[in-house]
Amino acid sequence: MIKVGVVGGTGYTGVELLRILAMHPHVDVVCITSRSEAGMPVAEMFPNLRGHLDIAFSEPDAATLSSCDVVFFATPNGVAMKMTPELLDAGVKVIDLAADFRLRDAAVWEQWYGEPHACPELLATAVYGLCEVNREAIKGAQLIANPGCYPTAVQLGLLPLVEAGLIDTSRIIADCKSGVSGAGRKAAVGILMSEVNESVKAYAVPGHRHLPEIKQGLAAMAGSDIGLTFVPHLMPMTRGIHATLFAELSATTEDLQSLYETRFAAESFVDVLPAGSHPETRMVKGANNCRIAVHRPQDGNTVVVLSVIDNLVKGAAGQAVQNMNILFNLQEDTGINGIALVP
Amino acid sequence: MIKVGVVGGTGYTGVELLRILAMHPHVDVVCITSRSEAGMPVAEMFPNLRGHLDIAFSEPDAATLSSCDVVFFATPNGVAMKMTPELLDAGVKVIDLAADFRLRDAAVWEQWYGEPHACPELLATAVYGLCEVNREAIKGAQLIANPGCYPTAVQLGLLPLVEAGLIDTSRIIADCKSGVSGAGRKAAVGILMSEVNESVKAYAVPGHRHLPEIKQGLAAMAGSDIGLTFVPHLMPMTRGIHATLFAELSATTEDLQSLYETRFAAESFVDVLPAGSHPETRMVKGANNCRIAVHRPQDGNTVVVLSVIDNLVKGAAGQAVQNMNILFNLQEDTGINGIALVP
Amino acid sequence: MIKVGVVGGTGYTGVELLRILAMHPHVDVVCITSRSEAGMPVAEMFPNLRGHLDIAFSEPDAATLSSCDVVFFATPNGVAMKMTPELLDAGVKVIDLAADFRLRDAAVWEQWYGEPHACPELLATAVYGLCEVNREAIKGAQLIANPGCYPTAVQLGLLPLVEAGLIDTSRIIADCKSGVSGAGRKAAVGILMSEVNESVKAYAVPGHRHLPEIKQGLAAMAGSDIGLTFVPHLMPMTRGIHATLFAELSATTEDLQSLYETRFAAESFVDVLPAGSHPETRMVKGANNCRIAVHRPQDGNTVVVLSVIDNLVKGAAGQAVQNMNILFNLQEDTGINGIALVP
Amino acid sequence: MIKVGVVGGTGYTGVELLRILAMHPHVDVVCITSRSEAGMPVAEMFPNLRGHLDIAFSEPDAATLSSCDVVFFATPNGVAMKMTPELLDAGVKVIDLAADFRLRDAAVWEQWYGEPHACPELLATAVYGLCEVNREAIKGAQLIANPGCYPTAVQLGLLPLVEAGLIDTSRIIADCKSGVSGAGRKAAVGILMSEVNESVKAYAVPGHRHLPEIKQGLAAMAGSDIGLTFVPHLMPMTRGIHATLFAELSATTEDLQSLYETRFAAESFVDVLPAGSHPETRMVKGANNCRIAVHRPQDGNTVVVLSVIDNLVKGAAGQAVQNMNILFNLQEDTGINGIALVP
Repeated sequence: MIKVGVVGGTGYTGVELLRILAMHPHVDVVCITSRSEAGMPVAEMFPNLRGHLDIAFSEPDAATLSSCDVVFFATPNGVAMKMTPELLDAGVKVIDLAADFRLRDAAVWEQWYGEPHACPELLATAVYGLCEVNREAIKGAQLIANPGCYPTAVQLGLLPLVEAGLIDTSRIIADCKSGVSGAGRKAAVGILMSEVNESVKAYAVPGHRHLPEIKQGLAAMAGSDIGLTFVPHLMPMTRGIHATLFAELSATTEDLQSLYETRFAAESFVDVLPAGSHPETRMVKGANNCRIAVHRPQDGNTVVVLSVIDNLVKGAAGQAVQNMNILFNLQEDTGINGIALVP
Repeated sequence: MIKVGVVGGTGYTGVELLRILAMHPHVDVVCITSRSEAGMPVAEMFPNLRGHLDIAFSEPDAATLSSCDVVFFATPNGVAMKMTPELLDAGVKVIDLAADFRLRDAAVWEQWYGEPHACPELLATAVYGLCEVNREAIKGAQLIANPGCYPTAVQLGLLPLVEAGLIDTSRIIADCKSGVSGAGRKAAVGILMSEVNESVKAYAVPGHRHLPEIKQGLAAMAGSDIGLTFVPHLMPMTRGIHATLFAELSATTEDLQSLYETRFAAESFVDVLPAGSHPETRMVKGANNCRIAVHRPQDGNTVVVLSVIDNLVKGAAGQAVQNMNILFNLQEDTGINGIALVP
Repeated sequence: MIKVGVVGGTGYTGVELLRILAMHPHVDVVCITSRSEAGMPVAEMFPNLRGHLDIAFSEPDAATLSSCDVVFFATPNGVAMKMTPELLDAGVKVIDLAADFRLRDAAVWEQWYGEPHACPELLATAVYGLCEVNREAIKGAQLIANPGCYPTAVQLGLLPLVEAGLIDTSRIIADCKSGVSGAGRKAAVGILMSEVNESVKAYAVPGHRHLPEIKQGLAAMAGSDIGLTFVPHLMPMTRGIHATLFAELSATTEDLQSLYETRFAAESFVDVLPAGSHPETRMVKGANNCRIAVHRPQDGNTVVVLSVIDNLVKGAAGQAVQNMNILFNLQEDTGINGIALVP
Repeated sequence: MIKVGVVGGTGYTGVELLRILAMHPHVDVVCITSRSEAGMPVAEMFPNLRGHLDIAFSEPDAATLSSCDVVFFATPNGVAMKMTPELLDAGVKVIDLAADFRLRDAAVWEQWYGEPHACPELLATAVYGLCEVNREAIKGAQLIANPGCYPTAVQLGLLPLVEAGLIDTSRIIADCKSGVSGAGRKAAVGILMSEVNESVKAYAVPGHRHLPEIKQGLAAMAGSDIGLTFVPHLMPMTRGIHATLFAELSATTEDLQSLYETRFAAESFVDVLPAGSHPETRMVKGANNCRIAVHRPQDGNTVVVLSVIDNLVKGAAGQAVQNMNILFNLQEDTGINGIALVP
C-alpha cells in the first residue's frame, strides 16, 4: 500500500481527491492536514465520505508527512512551495495540484502569482504532469506539477495539431467554458448560487494565470513561441470544462480525424469522438476522460477543436492520481477508471 | 460471471444500470434489448460508456434472454409482465425495475396503471425488493419487484417508527421532492429544461401511483392499514429524492436517534446521520446510500424524518443490483459501493 | 412624487426594491444608503440598473432620510429598530423589510433574534403589512413591518381555512421550499453555487425564525393558539417559494374551491387557480402574485394547499411597495403589476 | 391603439411577445392563432398571463388577421412566407420573428432551410429589422424580418469595428453561448432538463442557419464579403446569449472604447460597459438591452468583444416590438423599457 498524505483537502479539489483515494485499491491515506479544521472528521465536512474514509483533519506535521510515500498538495497557490523542499529532502514524492511548480521561469511565476517564488531552484526539476505528453519524465520524477484545468483541456485538444506542425501557432484562440467548482470552495459573493445561476460571463479577459501555463506547454510541443488568446467563461453549472479551440491550418489538407485518432490511440483517458461529434461535458462528469472532436467547418481553413474534461478529475484530482499511478508503476487507470455519471 | 440481460436500457434508469453493471466485477452483460434502437452501439447513445461497454442494442430475443442467469427490465410499466412468465419458465431470474410486480393485489394494480395485469398469478410469488426489509425472502426469490424511488425513500425513512409502533399510522404525511430524471427520458414538453429549471411545483396531488405501493409496504410493517397523504414535487435538478416525513408520536418519549441507529446498524446502505443533521441529496448523488435524520421539533409530538436517496441508484438501478447481489450470494455491496460525487 | 429613501440596498431584497422603485411612476428615490459602499454608483454594483437609476450609495444620514416621505429598510435584522424611532419622530413613514417589527412580543423577538429589542414600545404600533389581511390598518400606519417570505406564502395559503374555522389548528404542517436568494447576498460557503446546485435539503428543522411570525399571524386569524410544524427547504434555484400546507378538516364537507375564490375575489395579487391545478413558482417569477391551489386528495380528511410566491417580490420588495401604495392612497398595483417572466 | 394579431404564440418567443404586448400601452391584441390549441385560453397554457391577457387561441383566419394593423409571426420557419403576401395585399404590416425573410438570396435561403422559398419576390422588399442599423428603412417598411438571436448579439458586437474598417473581416470568429430557450418549446429529448442541465456542448459546428444571416449583415456593413467561423454552444440555463467575438485589428491603434461609446451613444438599447468590464447575461434577463464590452488582451492585435442579450427579448420578441414602435412612430422604448430581473 502506498502511504499517502494530503495537505489541504477542504476544497473541491480536495474532496474529489479524497473520493478517489478512498476507493483506490493500493492507497492508504495516512493524514489529511488542515490548519483551520484540525480535529474535525473529514466525513463530517463531506458526508459523502461517511463509511468510506474514517480520518480527521490534522495539523500539518512534518514528521507525519515525511513518513508518507507521496504527499498531495490540494492547497491554494503558494503553500506547496514552502513545504516541498523539506519533503523532497526526506525522500517523499510530491504532487502539487496547485500552480506552484507549473511555470519553469520564476520571473514569470512571480509576475502572474504576485509574490516571489519560494524555491525557484526546484522549477527546473519539477515535471509538468500532463501524462499524455510527459509520461516518461513523470516515471522518474520526485516532484510533479499537476496541470491546471484549462491547460489540460486546451493542451490535449491542440496537441496533435501542434506536434504535427499543421497550424499557425502565432494566432491560436481558446474560448473556454468552466463550471464554477473551478473557482474553489471559498466564501465569496461572486460564486454564490444567486450570482452564477442562469447566467454566463467571460472573466479575466485581460489576462488569466493559466495563459502562461498553456503557452509554455504549447511552446514546448511546437518548439517555438505561441500566440494565444485565451478567454475563460464561467458557466452556470458545477463541474466541467469545454474548450473551443480555433486555429488556422498552415499545411495543405490533412485527415484531421485520423491524425487525432492515431495520436491518442494508446491513451486510456483521451477519447477522440467520431467525425462530426460534439462532446458534452456531462459525458465526462466524475470521470478522468478527455473527450475530443475535431471539425473543419465548411472545409475552410479554420480548424475547430472541441475538448471536454471534468475540471475536478482530469483537470485536477484524477490527473494527480494518474500521475501517482505512473510514479509508482501501477496500471495507469487504477482507481480512476470510473464511468461518467449520466444524467 | 453472472450472465445478465437487460430489456430496455435507453432511459435514465437503463443507462445508470449499465454504468453499474459495466463496472461490476462479476457480471457479463450478454444483451441489451431495444426494439427502437436495435443495432445502435449503446455507447453511441450514451458516450459516457465509450470504452466501458462494447455492445449494441438488439431486438428482444427469447432465446438469448433465456440463456441469461438474470434479466433486468428497465422498461416502461406494462412491458415486463408480458415477458416474465416465459423467462421464469426458462429458469431465469427476473428483476423488474418498473412497477409491474410491486402491488400484490391485481385489482389495485389495474386501478392505478390503467390496464389489466397480464399475469396476476405471479403477484403473490414476486418478492418486493426493499432489501432492508425483505432480505431473506429475496435470497430465495426468482422474481423481484424492485421498489419505486419515492417508496424507497419513504419506507426506509419511516421503517423504525412503524415497526416499533411509535406513530399514529392513520395520519402520515410524506412531502417528497424529486429530481426530474425520475420522469424518464422521453420527448415531453413538461420536462424540458426551460419548463423545469428555476421552478418548483407539486404534481399528482390527487393521487400518484406510488401511493398504493407505499401504503402496502408500510401496512406490512405495521400490520394494519395506513393513512397516508403523499405529495410529490418536481425539483429543478436532475437526480435526487428528498422525503420529508411527518407523523404524530403515539407512544411516550423515546430516544428516536437510538431507535434509528439501532435499526439500521447492520445496513451498509442506510446511514443515520448524527442528531440535528439535515441530509442533502447531493451527498448520495451517484451512490446507493439512503441518508436519514430524525427530528422532533421543539420537543413536540410531531416527528419529522428527512430521508434522501439518489432516485436512479438506491431508488432504481443501484437497488436492483443490490437485489442481484443478494440473489447470487455475492457480498451485498459488490459493484455498488461507490462514493457520492461531491460537488 | 413620493420622496423615497432606502437604507441598505446591496442585497437581493435591495436590488429588487430598486428595480421596482425605478419603474414606479410616482416615486423619486432620494437616497440609498450603504455604509460599506458609500460613493459607489448603484448601477456599478447592479448593472441591470444602468440607465434606470442614476444614484450612488451614500452614508446613512439622518437629515436626508428625515426629508423623505417614506424610508424602506432593506437591511439585516436589527438595523431598522435602531434608526426607526428618530425617523418616526420626524414624521417619516417607515417600511421595514427585515424582521424588526414583525413580532408583537419583545420577549419572543429576543428569543428568536438573539438580542434585546431596541424599541419594544413600537411593537404595538407597528402594523404587520400582510395587505390582504391588514389593509385597513395599513392605511393609517406610520410603521409597517413587511412580512417575511415564508410567512407570506403560508398565511395567504391558509387564510380562508383558518378564518372559516374549518381546520384543526392544533396540527398544521407547512413544508416550504425556497430559492436560495432568500438566504441573502453574503459571502458564505453554504450558499455557493457548488453547494446548492443540484441538491435539496431541509434546514432549521429544530426551529426557524419565521415560525413565531407565522404562528402569530395564524393565531390572530383563528383567535386561538396554533400548533404548527414548519420545515423550510433550500431549493437549487434562485427565486421562488412553494409552500405545501397540510391540515385536517374539522368541519364537514365544504366546497373549498369556492371558499378560496370568494375570499380572494377582490384581491389583485392573490390568484386562486382552477380546481385540480398545481401552481409553479416560475409562474410568479418577478411578479407580485401569490398563486394558490387547494386539494383534498382522495376526498379524505386532509386538505393540501399549494401556495407560490416570488420570495423577493410578494415575499419582500413587491409587498413592501404594495404597502407603500396603500399608505399613500395610490392604486394598489401601481408599479407592481408586471407579468411573471416565463420561461 | 394598434390592432395586433399574433400567429403562433405557443412557443417561448410567443409567450414573451404576449407578455410584452399585454403590458404595452398602445396595443390591443386582437387575436392569437394556433391551429393545435384553438379554443384554449392563452392564460391556461401560460398562467403567468392570468389576469393580464383574456383571450383564447383561435384558428388562423384571414379576415381577422387582415383587419389588424400589424401581424407578428411567432411561428416555425416556413409558415410566415405562406401567409404574408395576402396580408401585405390587405395593407397589414408584418413582422416575422422567424427566418423567412432574413436572407435576401432565395437560393441561399433554400440551401439552409431545405425548401424553396414561397415568395422570393418579397425578399428584396423585406427590411432586416436590426434597428440600430436599419432604423430609417424600418420606418417605411411594410414587411420586417426580425433578426435571429445569435445574429443580433454578433452584429451589434462587431458593428463599430466593421463599420470603421478596423478589423480583418476575412477571419472573424464568433464563439456564442445560448440558453436552451433558443431551441424552442417542443417535445424533444435533446432539450430535456436531464440532458441539458449541468452540461455544456457546442452544436452545429459544421454549419448553423444563423451563419449566412450574420455574414449577410456584416457584409452589408463592410461592403465586402466576410470570413466567419461561428460556433454556437448550448448552455445549462434558460435565457441569454453571450457572444464572444475575436478579430484581428488591421489598422493601427485605436481607442476602441471611445469608438464603441460613440457609435452607440444615441442607442437606448445598446449599453457599452466601462473599459475592462465583463457583461453577464443575467444583467439583461427579461430586458431589451444589449450590453457590450470591448477588450484588447495584453495590448495585442486581437480584439475581443463580449456582447450579451436576452435571446427572447432583444434577440426576438423585444426587438420585434421595437420594430413595431418604429413602424408606428411611437417612442422607440415604449413597452420595452423594463429592467433586467436580478438575481
